[in-house]
Amino acid sequence: MVDNSSPSSSTVSRTVLLFLRVLTFVFLLIALILIAANKYTNDETGDKVKFSDFYAYRYMISTIVIGFAYNLLQMALSIFIVVSGNRVFNGDSGYLFNFFGDKIISYFLISGSAAGFGVTVEMFRGVPSNSFSDKANASASLLLIGFLFTAIASTYTAFALPKKANN
Amino acid sequence: MVDNSSPSSSTVSRTVLLFLRVLTFVFLLIALILIAANKYTNDETGDKVKFSDFYAYRYMISTIVIGFAYNLLQMALSIFIVVSGNRVFNGDSGYLFNFFGDKIISYFLISGSAAGFGVTVEMFRGVPSNSFSDKANASASLLLIGFLFTAIASTYTAFALPKKANN
Repeated sequence: MVDNSSPSSSTVSRTVLLFLRVLTFVFLLIALILIAANKYTNDETGDKVKFSDFYAYRYMISTIVIGFAYNLLQMALSIFIVVSGNRVFNGDSGYLFNFFGDKIISYFLISGSAAGFGVTVEMFRGVPSNSFSDKANASASLLLIGFLFTAIASTYTAFALPKKANN
Repeated sequence: MVDNSSPSSSTVSRTVLLFLRVLTFVFLLIALILIAANKYTNDETGDKVKFSDFYAYRYMISTIVIGFAYNLLQMALSIFIVVSGNRVFNGDSGYLFNFFGDKIISYFLISGSAAGFGVTVEMFRGVPSNSFSDKANASASLLLIGFLFTAIASTYTAFALPKKANN
């Protein structure tokens, strides 16, 4: 079923994948903290602004949380496989889960990042840059980097598809 | 090099791919017309609003044009292959071009759609819906549908990777 003839190359790509997921996890965690703690009080008018006042930032948070949960699950599965020496999925389902998981999560992450950037650019145009817009941009940038790592992981898992049995 | 033992299944998936690309092309064309022709004049104040006043809509147009050009190229290549009976790319490069092309273009399309939706929702919140925001939403929706077709095509081209020679 599974190609065990080249354990070294398979171990290398599994390590690269795990490394990419840990990196994504770290970047998403910082992005989440930055955007969730983002508050701003205008000293002159006393107006308070929070991330939850903007639908786009709420959507961004949802995509970060979804990506975060997915990467946590993948890391837990990797550790389980290393510790127990068993595969969690039988046959092809592991490859398909990785392939579709990475693909769908990477689409979520880039859509959240694009929505966040779009709204920050548009809402704070002509306004002098302040800590609120800076943090929102920083969070969207970290989310974009997390997306890039997931997109690379997604390319890896697509190239792993030939190892499926049904070819 | 290329698996020619099952021409029927390969012809079917090539037809499905071409069909998905024609659909994407049509949806992107309508999305482009809708957003590029989007103007609004406020009857009371006389203020004029155009799509180019918003950075997010300009980004959206760029992603539509990129997706449009890519699908045009792919359709031209398909017609060339059918007419001449030759492959345009030798060996593996055709599969890799399709795989990375679909993957990257689908990321562009969803980011454009997300930026467009995010800004429309945020800018026209609390404002009664008008023809400008309606058309912007319609364009972003069509772009999202175009993305879905490209994402399906991208899954197809990923599953075609095992036909590469180097496995």
